Parts: sequence; structure tokens; C-alpha cells
Amino acid sequence: MKVLANPSQIQLAEALARPLDGQAAERRSKVAAMLNAIRSEGEAAVRRFSRQFDGFAAETFEVAAAEHKAAEQQVAPALKAAIRQAHANIKTFHEAQKEEVRRIETMPGIVCWRKGVPIEKVGLYVPGGTAPLFSTVLMLGVPAQLAGCAEIVLCTPPRLDGSVHPAVLFAARQCGIHRVFKLGGVQAIGAMAYGVAGVPAVWKIFGPGNPWVTAAKQLVSLEGVAIDMPAGPSEVCVVADSTAHPAFVAADLLSQAEHGADSQVLLIATSGELLEKVEVALKAQLADLPRRDFAEKSLANSCAILVSDLHEAMRIANQYAPEHLILQVADAAQWADRVVNAGSVFLGTFTPESAGDYASGTNHTLPTEGWARSYSGVSLDGFLKKITFQHISPDGLRTLAPTIVEMARAEGLDAHARAVEIRLSAAEPSNQPLASNI
Amino acid sequence: MKVLANPSQIQLAEALARPLDGQAAERRSKVAAMLNAIRSEGEAAVRRFSRQFDGFAAETFEVAAAEHKAAEQQVAPALKAAIRQAHANIKTFHEAQKEEVRRIETMPGIVCWRKGVPIEKVGLYVPGGTAPLFSTVLMLGVPAQLAGCAEIVLCTPPRLDGSVHPAVLFAARQCGIHRVFKLGGVQAIGAMAYGVAGVPAVWKIFGPGNPWVTAAKQLVSLEGVAIDMPAGPSEVCVVADSTAHPAFVAADLLSQAEHGADSQVLLIATSGELLEKVEVALKAQLADLPRRDFAEKSLANSCAILVSDLHEAMRIANQYAPEHLILQVADAAQWADRVVNAGSVFLGTFTPESAGDYASGTNHTLPTEGWARSYSGVSLDGFLKKITFQHISPDGLRTLAPTIVEMARAEGLDAHARAVEIRLSAAEPSNQPLASNI
Repeated sequence: MKVLANPSQIQLAEALARPLDGQAAERRSKVAAMLNAIRSEGEAAVRRFSRQFDGFAAETFEVAAAEHKAAEQQVAPALKAAIRQAHANIKTFHEAQKEEVRRIETMPGIVCWRKGVPIEKVGLYVPGGTAPLFSTVLMLGVPAQLAGCAEIVLCTPPRLDGSVHPAVLFAARQCGIHRVFKLGGVQAIGAMAYGVAGVPAVWKIFGPGNPWVTAAKQLVSLEGVAIDMPAGPSEVCVVADSTAHPAFVAADLLSQAEHGADSQVLLIATSGELLEKVEVALKAQLADLPRRDFAEKSLANSCAILVSDLHEAMRIANQYAPEHLILQVADAAQWADRVVNAGSVFLGTFTPESAGDYASGTNHTLPTEGWARSYSGVSLDGFLKKITFQHISPDGLRTLAPTIVEMARAEGLDAHARAVEIRLSAAEPSNQPLASNI
Repeated sequence: MKVLANPSQIQLAEALARPLDGQAAERRSKVAAMLNAIRSEGEAAVRRFSRQFDGFAAETFEVAAAEHKAAEQQVAPALKAAIRQAHANIKTFHEAQKEEVRRIETMPGIVCWRKGVPIEKVGLYVPGGTAPLFSTVLMLGVPAQLAGCAEIVLCTPPRLDGSVHPAVLFAARQCGIHRVFKLGGVQAIGAMAYGVAGVPAVWKIFGPGNPWVTAAKQLVSLEGVAIDMPAGPSEVCVVADSTAHPAFVAADLLSQAEHGADSQVLLIATSGELLEKVEVALKAQLADLPRRDFAEKSLANSCAILVSDLHEAMRIANQYAPEHLILQVADAAQWADRVVNAGSVFLGTFTPESAGDYASGTNHTLPTEGWARSYSGVSLDGFLKKITFQHISPDGLRTLAPTIVEMARAEGLDAHARAVEIRLSAAEPSNQPLASNI
């Protein structure tokens, strides 16, 4: 890791900048062409891209009942138990996000409320690549199930033998997901957006992915399919003071760095001594790490910043707006109140990011690349629309009428005013009797 | 209005389809070029586009303190009172959307919670055009203020004389918005996205607009600036049974139709007699409507559907997914439970859409073009990120460790497992004492 001591604003801006994606424009136009092909040719294009990019060209993309059943047998009991425990915790945390309908009487006779209504059809994308991400299945599937989405579709790229990792299928079953498709990349997003290759069209697509998947999600979001958020390489920022445990800090940095060479790792420390100890611990822990190559490459691009106090550290962390923020500081709870921009925050010595990645209950699908300034991570909310409702009594409308009429006329919208006036004049006792559905 | 009686699925699909936007691709590429110019040239490009499209080329775009002060004098007392009343109701309804932080102990020693944290910098766009939309100022400004966004910027196109309508400025002041810029269209969105022409860069842009504004919002959303939602022409769907009051139905249809020739109006009725009476009432009410031209054009493209019962009516309404849904039916509350896709719902005889457009308290910035299937209208939520937090005790981590370690190793992420193991081994009584910040 490079070390920056008390950096200037310019040094800081450079250190916190995400790597420029020089291929973004070119990638986007390639993805647009692929999506066009999927829209116009349908299954043939999906099949072609699947063969080309996943080396997969089976008769049907949907996982068969027999495969689901076999997966049930193939997952070891210990892993099943772990997945069940994680599922239970994620469910507990997301269930608490349910909101009761609250009727608000804004004025006498004017009652307004809003209600969370599940999005009917949702698509979940679970990346393949270097690891079978059954944890992501839980993170997307549990809130989809809790929300009550009527149709839940999951796409994930097949392995080289054309199968889906059994733990992915097992986790899907835990979430009540019965329709899993062996589709990855742009072709998966296109299939869910347009409803081709046997995949039902969905109204919203969730899940992380590589830059191609993200580009495809962003492009279909211009055309009528909502998405959870854009997603980039994973990130962690650790803020540590002199009370932090160097080996724990190093372990947290490595658990981010092992994701891939493009993972972003940032350490902000108030103690130079700690920084030195973390460097030593990193070397020691790297020695026998299976994914050492990824981690070393990622660390080479990473940065440690030495600052004078925790106020400055928090200012920098908020400027960076990390996906994951770990506060290994004395009185972490107090400093938690200073967090303005972050996806998920881990407080104290015994709260590693990997707890939230898997099993504590919080969601691990989180905003990256500074999107934490404006986006939340995936939660129950994302699977619901909040629809507003209102009911107004004749007296309520009478009270509110002058306000509506005055504003409508001032905006030049006369028919808006008349929709009120015509009701009030009909409601006068002298006028005709009204229908009984007031 | 065309009348369709018991339409086939094909007729229905045609009737419910939003008008195809044949210029979408061309518009998007023009908007992309404009945004590029704004990014590279800065203020010069903003000035050029402002002169070209708004006929405005003042020295400074920001509304001066003297203009704000003058506006205070220029708004008539009755309109001021109306704006204050609407502000109060919108505030009451949106204040109730605040969520208390709930700490959830998912397992003993594992405490997770989430907290709504305001988005620091937000930009509000208020269209100009045929009406001064001070109501939209309230609909965006009230939740922004309630959320506690530190920087709130408002852009709105100037009138021909280079001024902003005083009611717009008055409404902005009611919401604590002090920075208003005379900028419209693509140049407004570009200025807020990139922070040029004296406009601070923002993290999220809200508000309705014409197709150019929407295209600009969508394009900047690919690059790091969040948006509330895409927005198209306004829509209403009225579901009416034989108990509905024909004049009220007609008035509601007209209050939508007067927005513009592209407004979408749909009536679904269970009674042919009612349909006939509504036609008569429409003619009568159209006669002296100031915006009759808009309303007639909009109605010419609109459709009334006659169905056999309310179940069928609700099925069609949900398929259409309207921005506004009015249920003028007996027992509207019961039918409200059947609403799956809609932006905002108006129940019963005395609840015109114009109440929600202005002053009942609900938000009028709502999803159009079928986006109500997946998007919510603007609410307090849109101005907050929900950040998750967690704190785990040593015992809690010990309990959860087998789950995390099992899952991490199965996903091939060894460093994730070690971040747990290294903590537990250090926490053994026989090992070194730990820092005091557990």
C-alpha cells in the first residue's frame, strides 16, 4: 500500500478517485448492439451470446426440476446449515423493514396514506466468475420473498460443464425461487428485460455484475425496466485509531482485496505506528492466502492515509463514500453518527465486514464507486412500490377547496379548479341527491 | 373519446400502449452532445443553450436577493395563504414518513440497524412552459427540507422577460430554498450534474420535465448523478361504476386532459349508461374551458373502456399502471386493496385528483408511462440514503463464526473466513489483551 501522510486536497482527490474506466463508452455501444440483437432476434441471439461468452449452448436455459433435486443432495450438511442460519438472520433484519400503513389526517376529513405493494415481476442476477455466489442469492432472494413479489426469476451463468453450483440452487430454494436460468452477462439482462429464451419479462432487475452486466442494466433502465443500482468493483474503507488491532485491520483489508484485482481498499489511520504494524500483518497474512494474486494486485493500487485526528479521518471517509466502512476506533458508536456517505458500516473490534457479507443479517448488495452519496443498498424497499392513497369527505373538500382553487387558477389550470367546484356545488343540500359511495 | 366495449386482449394492449416516441434515439444523441459540450466548455455552453432555447442570456443565472424580496411583495395574499396551507399539509404527510431507527438483534450479540441519512446535495428541476408550477416547488422542496439535505438547488426556466414567476420564488422560500437558478432544459440538468455556470454540482436530481429534460436526467444517471425517476406525459385512469357521478368523472378527465395534448386519459366503466352521461358532461364542461384546445386534443387520443364488472376494471387498470388512479365506485376502500400498479390513488366521490395535485398532502411527482409497475412517487425516502450499521460482540461473533467461515470457504474466499478466525483466536483468554474498544 502507498502511504500518504496528511495529504493535500489535490493528493487526496487523486487517492480517492476511482479508476477511470476508459472503455466505458465503447463497452456501452457494444452492449447496446447486443441488446438490440436480443430484442429483434430473441432466443437465437441469447443462444449465440451464451455460446460465445459462457461456452454454453444447452437446449433449455432453465434449470430442470431434476437438477434442483440433485442440488439438494449435493450440498454438504454443514453448508446447508450455514445457508439456513444466514437466511434466518437476513430474514429477521429485512422483515423489520416492513412498514405499517399509517393513515394521516392532514386536515379534518382529508386522510392520506401510503402502502408498500410488491413489484410483481423481479429478476435477480447472480454473477458467476471466480466464486459461486450463493450468498448473493440470499441477499436478493430474501427481500424479494418477504416483499411478496409474485414472480421471481434468477439468472446466473453456468459453470463450464453447463451446471449451476448446487449451493446456488439450494439457496434459491430457501428463498422460494423456483425459476433459475443458466444465463450470464448481457444476454441474461436482455432476456429478463425483454422476456425471451423462456425467461419471463420482469419490471425490475437486481444484483451485482461485471462492467458488461452493469452497462446492460443501465441501458435497459432507459427503456422501461427499473434497476437496483449501478454496481462497480467492491470497496472497503477502514478507519483506525491507535486502539485498533493491526492484525484485524490487515485481515479486513485482505478480505476486500481478495475479491479481485480491481477491488478498492483504503485505510485511514490516526497512528503511524499502527500503519507500520498493519503493513507487517498484511505481509504475514498474505503469505499463504489462496487468492494471494488478486489480493496483492489490489493492494498495490491501494492507499493508506495518515491523518492527525478522527475528525479528519471521517471527513475523508465521507468524501470517499465507500461501499463498506469499518470503524476500528475507540467509541465507534459515537463516530458512527458522523457517517454521511457509506453503504454499510461495521463498528468496533469484533465486527468484520465478512459478517455482513454473509450472515449477520444486513444486505451485501451495496452502492460502489461513490454512489453511496445518493443510493442505498438493496433492502425490502427496493422490491416494493409505495403507492399513496387518499380519501376526502365532502366537508374535507369544502375546507381544502379555497387552497386548491386558488393554486390551480394561479397555475392557469382551470379544469383542476372546476373538478373541486363542481363537486361542492353538487354537494349543496339544495342540489340533487348524491350516490351513496361518499 | 373512443369507446371500446369488452375489448379483446389485442385491442386492450393497443388501447393501453403509451404513444411510441419515435424521436427517442435521435433526441438522446442530441442531448448527449449538449451534455458533452456543457462538461467540456462549462458556462459558455450553458449560456449558449440558454440563449438558444429559453431566449435568455443574463449576466448571472442565479436569482438575486432583490428578486426574491420583490417576489414576496408580488404574490397576492390569497395565493400566499394557499401556498402556506398546501405546504403545511405536504409537510404533515411527508413528516410521517420519517422512520425511527430500530436496532435488531438478529442473534445474541449481533445488532444491526439502518438509518436514513440525507443526501447532501440535491437539485430540483421545476419546468416552465405553459404554467408556473409553484406546486412542484412544494412537492420537491418540502421533502428535501424535511430530509435535511444540506444543499438544495432549484433550476427553472425564466420567463421571456428573464424573470422567475414570483409564486415559484415564494414557494421556494417556504421550503428554505435560497439558491434558485434561471435555467431550463438540458442546460439546467447539465449545470446541476457537472457544477458549472455557478450552479453547485449535486448528487441527485429530482423533478418532472419535457422529453429533453428526461433524456438529460437519464443520461447523467449513467455517469454518477442519481435521479428520482424518468418522467413522461401526465396520466389519469378513472374507474367508475354505475354509482359514479358523471359530471365528476368528466371533470376529473378534463383536469388531466388540460395538461397538454399529450396527456393520457383513460376511463374504465362498468355501465354503458354512465359512459353516455360522461360524454354529455364532457361536452358541456369543455365549452368554456380556457385550455379547451389542449383538452380536446388529449381527449381525441383517449379511450373509454366498457367492462362487465369491477374485477375486470381493476385488472385493466393494473395492466395500464397509471400515474393517477381515481376509483369512483361504491365501496372504493375495498377496491383500493386490489390496486397493484399505480402512482397515487383517489378514493370516492369527493376526492378529485386536483386535491393531490396541490394540497391534500400527497406528492404529485409520480411515475408515468407504466413506470408505476416498479417506481414509487417522490417521497421523503428519495432524499435519504438508508445506511446499514452493525455491531458484534465477541460472543456474538463466536456464535456466528461457523456460519460465516463455512460460507466464505465454500465461496472460495479464504480471507473472509480468516477475518473472523483471527479475531476469535485473539479473543481467547490465553491470548494477548485486546484494546478497550470492544
